[in-house]
Amino acid sequence: MESLRYKLTIAYDGALFHGWQKQEPPGEEPLRTVQGVIIEAMQRLLAQPINLVGASRTDARVHAIGQVAHFDAASRVPVERMAGAITGRLPEDIDIIKAEVVDRSFDAITDAKNKQYRYSLHHTRRRPLGQRHAVYHCWTPLDIDRMNDAAARLVGTHDVEGLSAAGHGRTSTIRTIYDCHVETKDDQVQIVVQGSGFLYNMVRIIAGTLVEVGRGRFEPSVIDRILATADRREAGPTLPAEGLCLEWIAY
Amino acid sequence: MESLRYKLTIAYDGALFHGWQKQEPPGEEPLRTVQGVIIEAMQRLLAQPINLVGASRTDARVHAIGQVAHFDAASRVPVERMAGAITGRLPEDIDIIKAEVVDRSFDAITDAKNKQYRYSLHHTRRRPLGQRHAVYHCWTPLDIDRMNDAAARLVGTHDVEGLSAAGHGRTSTIRTIYDCHVETKDDQVQIVVQGSGFLYNMVRIIAGTLVEVGRGRFEPSVIDRILATADRREAGPTLPAEGLCLEWIAY
Repeated sequence: MESLRYKLTIAYDGALFHGWQKQEPPGEEPLRTVQGVIIEAMQRLLAQPINLVGASRTDARVHAIGQVAHFDAASRVPVERMAGAITGRLPEDIDIIKAEVVDRSFDAITDAKNKQYRYSLHHTRRRPLGQRHAVYHCWTPLDIDRMNDAAARLVGTHDVEGLSAAGHGRTSTIRTIYDCHVETKDDQVQIVVQGSGFLYNMVRIIAGTLVEVGRGRFEPSVIDRILATADRREAGPTLPAEGLCLEWIAY
Repeated sequence: MESLRYKLTIAYDGALFHGWQKQEPPGEEPLRTVQGVIIEAMQRLLAQPINLVGASRTDARVHAIGQVAHFDAASRVPVERMAGAITGRLPEDIDIIKAEVVDRSFDAITDAKNKQYRYSLHHTRRRPLGQRHAVYHCWTPLDIDRMNDAAARLVGTHDVEGLSAAGHGRTSTIRTIYDCHVETKDDQVQIVVQGSGFLYNMVRIIAGTLVEVGRGRFEPSVIDRILATADRREAGPTLPAEGLCLEWIAY
């Protein structure tokens, strides 16, 4: 059988995962990670070692509806049945949305051109209850127009160092943000960010900064200053992981 | 201080509760129940023993957005701050929506005139992921018009014995159903039932019967037969608890 390269589109509820990336601390039980759980299911299905390369290393408790990964395998399972066959071996908090055969040169990480994340705030005094693992609860009044004023200033190609946590380990901190805006839906305020790539904690820091603008502690022009000075201390707090969802990745 | 009677309106995510009713098996740890957890918080707040009487004994994993309960207490906490003060002492999966002082004669159980439940089906092949504790996953095609035909036949005053689990322990099995219909919303099919009272598992059996009608295994006239014969074996299966939510109780 010929070995082919496959592209997977993956959704997961991040609540009970230590993030995407496989973690096997020496001498300890491996942590429950999305990558680790999927690899285990795939190796049982395909009876061969699998190297699954994910486009985004989502953090612990972060969700995805459109994570992308690639792998190579020589498989008897036809591609149209691959997604269902893997999902059938997965726990309830992961769903393989789609499996496609792609060109051998396809790389989930380096070929990604654009990614969209959404950060969801539960914006009412009422508790989110069953939604509590999918939202950040924030009941302070928010001026959405002010938030959108600030969000629009992020669009463009900038040095985004001031919007990232220390230790991101990337040489270049220049990124292009294609869209950033704030939506309201039922009891939620949602911050949507689309960009060529993101540094560590970047969307959660953007969300934290826009919330400070929305509640009146920062002016919308804070964004210009953060981009000009590249100083993390000018930005707002890193909001909790549970409000974040990776929506899609374009190639 | 004068002892007053209070009415509470309560919401909870039932996923991690062994139902509403306090359960303290002799010689064992008490089970985690909504009533038990609220009583504990209230006794800390009000520094007196509390007898909290809930209108509906929801089962393990069943949710509520409008459970009602009453209790008597002599309290220094003004009524307008009571709901927030109790909620502040509760875990994240319960929210006291409202506290009101009511007439001493008010009884949450016997004064209830009408209750509405909603049973939610996640009706797509995609997994419900973060919603999995709030819905029943059912991806079989459903004919909503047929389900509504059957649902409408439930409206009225009937002997509902055939729609309840054995061992409900009620003398009379005559109940009035004020409304029953099926709605679709995004990826969900929702079965709404409103009635004067419900026997054990009754909404989950109604939902299971309407699903059998929707998928074509039963005719809508099955409802007439169940009501005429009072035979549980004519009805569909009891659907799982997680899809069920107590929405409101009218007095």
